[in-house]
Amino acid sequence: MAKSPPRLFVEEPLGADLTVGLTLAHVHYLKSVLRLKPNDMVALFNGRDGEWHGELTWHGKSEALVALKRRMCPQEIENPVAVGPTLMFAPIKRGPMEILVQKATELGVRRLCPVITEYTDVVRINAERLHATAVEAAEQCERLSVPSLQEAKPLMDILDDWPESDRLIWAAEAGPVRPIAEALADFKPVGADAEGFAKDTPSCGWTIAVGPVGGFSPVEQEVLRSLPFVIPVGLGPRLLKAETAALAALSCWQSVLGDWAMRPIDRNHQ
Amino acid sequence: MAKSPPRLFVEEPLGADLTVGLTLAHVHYLKSVLRLKPNDMVALFNGRDGEWHGELTWHGKSEALVALKRRMCPQEIENPVAVGPTLMFAPIKRGPMEILVQKATELGVRRLCPVITEYTDVVRINAERLHATAVEAAEQCERLSVPSLQEAKPLMDILDDWPESDRLIWAAEAGPVRPIAEALADFKPVGADAEGFAKDTPSCGWTIAVGPVGGFSPVEQEVLRSLPFVIPVGLGPRLLKAETAALAALSCWQSVLGDWAMRPIDRNHQ
Repeated sequence: MAKSPPRLFVEEPLGADLTVGLTLAHVHYLKSVLRLKPNDMVALFNGRDGEWHGELTWHGKSEALVALKRRMCPQEIENPVAVGPTLMFAPIKRGPMEILVQKATELGVRRLCPVITEYTDVVRINAERLHATAVEAAEQCERLSVPSLQEAKPLMDILDDWPESDRLIWAAEAGPVRPIAEALADFKPVGADAEGFAKDTPSCGWTIAVGPVGGFSPVEQEVLRSLPFVIPVGLGPRLLKAETAALAALSCWQSVLGDWAMRPIDRNHQ
Repeated sequence: MAKSPPRLFVEEPLGADLTVGLTLAHVHYLKSVLRLKPNDMVALFNGRDGEWHGELTWHGKSEALVALKRRMCPQEIENPVAVGPTLMFAPIKRGPMEILVQKATELGVRRLCPVITEYTDVVRINAERLHATAVEAAEQCERLSVPSLQEAKPLMDILDDWPESDRLIWAAEAGPVRPIAEALADFKPVGADAEGFAKDTPSCGWTIAVGPVGGFSPVEQEVLRSLPFVIPVGLGPRLLKAETAALAALSCWQSVLGDWAMRPIDRNHQ
């Protein structure tokens, strides 16, 4: 099997006969880390135009251009439904938060939505670094898009502005709940096609919410339980770290309502 | 709510009126990190005798004893079935491997089983460090046991010695498979009780297997597919890192066949 060319996320439009200039960071990566040579192939995606393969040329020490040759995947192969739910998470320490963003990207989140709760004790978010983490994970896991990173907002503001048709899966640390597999099964689309995802997916959006270290406060828990769009779920008898709870809930969501009936794209047979 | 006492895993037997000596590392942690005082409470578990609370006393600079007062949970509360499957994984780099061990412990694995495959390029495992990671995760997630870490063995040797009744869920990176939720649903116990786990669970043991970076080799894939106890499953269209695949598969297993209908133990109401 031919080795796949390195995949890079770019902002520029991609299309037939276009040439794309790369950033300094990309040039460094391709030249000094991967030691690519002129005419080597590179794969580019921008979250809009699918994935393209193109030929690399160097211009001087710090410039590189990619002459696009062939579209390997249309953007539509990544069904918007397939790029799963929003993940709402209270900012945690830098290391675990980067793990959370990296794994959530691999697990197909659509948006990353930091939320300030009563027990949130980390308030500084390095948005640039988290975005870079998401980009790198998207490049490696062969997504055609990068999850968007929202600005941090207070939990109560988000709940006040909640779109009526959207649902919020809350990994509840205490109180009565249904186990997550049982709760999600209620929503399994009936009209799922052979690839396992519903053509007639309802327009509802999904969010998965996990609390900070220490969980949501008693007041927040009471509010969450009172809202009709919130589905409190249980993730078993062990106390999961925030990032573990997020990834466990996302995995279950994807396995029941997401795109896990699909297989990795075989780019050699497009 | 009273703050829970720190939980420590010890090797010694636990029981009424026993006094347990702590290791130097525990003494340092309780004294210098948590700054506990004489008569402060400590929770101990050893994987055999449940969880006990006891009173701390210092003896000199580096010795500490815990006089056990009360059993907070019997060991039987952690159903052996509840402490899930074995995780078979090819050794990966130190950082991701520690994440894998930490999260797999939180997600309730029973055994950690490193496996040498054709594409395994990390051969050195720091067993002591991985055990310490599992212990710390068990202390924090309130397990009553620590998953055992097996010695690394070649994949083919493990498959040759496979116990006839045990099943192997293989997160297959290529080829035809069923999505994991669908494959697991076949095994959902019919006689599950109100807490959601089967009293009459069949004696079969479960293992979840993930490959190294690059996956299993074509020959290994062919062998895995040919074995009657292997269930190849899919985890969707994105290429997951080895540790992400392990955690995603474990989460799905727990949500369908494990103990996720149970809730965290409320030690204040024992």
